[in-house]
Amino acid sequence: MSVTAPKGFTAAGVAAGIKANGNPDLALVVNTGPRRAAAGVFTSNRVKAAPVLWSEQVLKGGAVTAVVLNSGGANACTGPKGFQDTHATAEKAAEVLGHSAGEVAVASTGLIGVLLPMDKLLPGVEAAAAELSEHGGEKAAIAIKTTDTVHKTAVVTSPAGWTVGGMAKGAGMLAPGLATMLVVLTTDADADAGTLDKALRDATRQTFDRIDSDGCMSTNDTVLLLASGASGTVPEYGEFADAVRAVCDDLARQLIGDAEGASKDIRIEVVHAASEDDALEVGRSIARNNLLKCALHGEDPNWGRVLSAIGTTSAVFEPDAIDVAINGVWVCRGGSVGEDRDLVDMRYREITITADLAAGEASAVIWTNDLTADYVHENSAYSS
Amino acid sequence: MSVTAPKGFTAAGVAAGIKANGNPDLALVVNTGPRRAAAGVFTSNRVKAAPVLWSEQVLKGGAVTAVVLNSGGANACTGPKGFQDTHATAEKAAEVLGHSAGEVAVASTGLIGVLLPMDKLLPGVEAAAAELSEHGGEKAAIAIKTTDTVHKTAVVTSPAGWTVGGMAKGAGMLAPGLATMLVVLTTDADADAGTLDKALRDATRQTFDRIDSDGCMSTNDTVLLLASGASGTVPEYGEFADAVRAVCDDLARQLIGDAEGASKDIRIEVVHAASEDDALEVGRSIARNNLLKCALHGEDPNWGRVLSAIGTTSAVFEPDAIDVAINGVWVCRGGSVGEDRDLVDMRYREITITADLAAGEASAVIWTNDLTADYVHENSAYSS
Repeated sequence: MSVTAPKGFTAAGVAAGIKANGNPDLALVVNTGPRRAAAGVFTSNRVKAAPVLWSEQVLKGGAVTAVVLNSGGANACTGPKGFQDTHATAEKAAEVLGHSAGEVAVASTGLIGVLLPMDKLLPGVEAAAAELSEHGGEKAAIAIKTTDTVHKTAVVTSPAGWTVGGMAKGAGMLAPGLATMLVVLTTDADADAGTLDKALRDATRQTFDRIDSDGCMSTNDTVLLLASGASGTVPEYGEFADAVRAVCDDLARQLIGDAEGASKDIRIEVVHAASEDDALEVGRSIARNNLLKCALHGEDPNWGRVLSAIGTTSAVFEPDAIDVAINGVWVCRGGSVGEDRDLVDMRYREITITADLAAGEASAVIWTNDLTADYVHENSAYSS
Repeated sequence: MSVTAPKGFTAAGVAAGIKANGNPDLALVVNTGPRRAAAGVFTSNRVKAAPVLWSEQVLKGGAVTAVVLNSGGANACTGPKGFQDTHATAEKAAEVLGHSAGEVAVASTGLIGVLLPMDKLLPGVEAAAAELSEHGGEKAAIAIKTTDTVHKTAVVTSPAGWTVGGMAKGAGMLAPGLATMLVVLTTDADADAGTLDKALRDATRQTFDRIDSDGCMSTNDTVLLLASGASGTVPEYGEFADAVRAVCDDLARQLIGDAEGASKDIRIEVVHAASEDDALEVGRSIARNNLLKCALHGEDPNWGRVLSAIGTTSAVFEPDAIDVAINGVWVCRGGSVGEDRDLVDMRYREITITADLAAGEASAVIWTNDLTADYVHENSAYSS
């Protein structure tokens, strides 16, 4: 059901011909109201794609009626013409839907540095508008896939009568400051833009910002949350924030599970850190250590590479007080040899690394993937 | 000739049995004087191997008579026992050579988290001492190899009558703050410890600190510079510093050329930066972008990934003022599409990426390698 699970939304996904292979490549999500409150979070990369620059402006108004998303081209590093193309896309959607372009967000994903084929994209917007449906959520989720092997959706419904739904794409370039991903969340809760913004920022900080597939930050990351108010229910904030975070968490976990070429999903828990920032710095340093990621691919519990990664951070710790467990076996105790590494069972896809800094009470979890020959192949054999 | 090219040095390399495959694994370098001044630079990783902790103390005295180096085990994350083993190694060398252990530096490389087989290492020190020779430089260089496919040596001789020689090992985990490498430089110039320290720090900052094979920083990096004074010539500082830097530069380039699994050596030039720090930050960000490293492996001039990496830095730049050339072809102009990417010839091993930030007059060069399936294999198929 995806983005059309909550009441007050229609969606569609079509093949506009942007992708050479004829796969679906254009999605449209429309908020039919009565509210049209919205919030957005975007890449912190300073090189931002045209649709990001455009949508950041749109979101400042706190209202979004429609989102046009395309795969098959990122429209990043495309200069003034690229920005004009994004603007024209919003204008086309506004014209077809009878709304203002200033309430149409645009998101794109694909190869950087190539102009979009507007002669295909604009008719695609018309075709998608003609197919808008309260059951269009799945098709929209499928149309935003790039190297994703599956489409990603999630839904949480409150006993209070409102629902949060979402869709996501992204399979590489997943890094803090948001993964390479496009995410649209919808809700029929009756919430204003300020509430949406707070809930969305809290949620992304603890979910999408804590997955780091390959350390690479995209130019196009976009996460939008749209509220239709169609349930007629004003949510209790805590419950609503929890629901938004649960949907984000579910989608983030799906992104890691489908990362390019990955054979392992790696959960890095940093515990007993002096601060949450320390825990995050250590977790990210471990997550970005190519040597460790290769070792985990080879099912080698190489805890020395974990220590080596921790040692490059500025976190509070004493090297001879660090404990490290891999899948629950404390292979490193006091910064030195601990339990027998042969006890570690690494046959399954999920691996948990626990780093105990013995420096305080804070903790954090970062997710990453292993580094594989398939990742290299997928990112070297053709432009993406 | 390596470390025995300058007068006043003997060296040896033997197979002590630390490596299971029987390859040479223990090197000894001895300064026969008349001077025994020395300087050292060590890993900035906060998790430091026992030999690094030991040798840092030794170097505080500014004098080194002998260096014991072993491959086959890093003696890192080995606790108090590991430190005792390093101490015992220095004591053994001091006993055999008739010197003080306080002037014996120790360096180790290999797997982290495993104690060294001291029953093999200590007799190895005796065996190496028995083979010390003014022609032993090559054998010493061979004995410190780990995954290196070739041994690395370099020599520069001054018309003034003194020489700087050096040997290095390292083939992965090459990152700023020093590569995973052991380097011993020797000179027969008559220089004191302060002069050596200044020349060595200047040289490493511009050479070993600017190679970044895989973003991973070792626990064991050690660079030592020993002066025997045997030429009887006090060098002019500028010429001496240039010679030390030239030897370091030569060895650093050899390290990149032999990086694990690499098929491309990538020279990243950042020009027109507002400061050298900015140029270095941008160069390192580009060097660590796995997606770009995969693309270059596939001979794909994917400049969008260069822009994306630049965008994650805090350097001074305007996104729409950046130019990027790959092998001299300006594929990105003003942050957007430039010359035809099909003009870029990437068939050869060396690739040059030029990033022009249009923000000032500073520049820097960082070297890295591509990311390949062979790298993944070499670092996942067995513990290293």
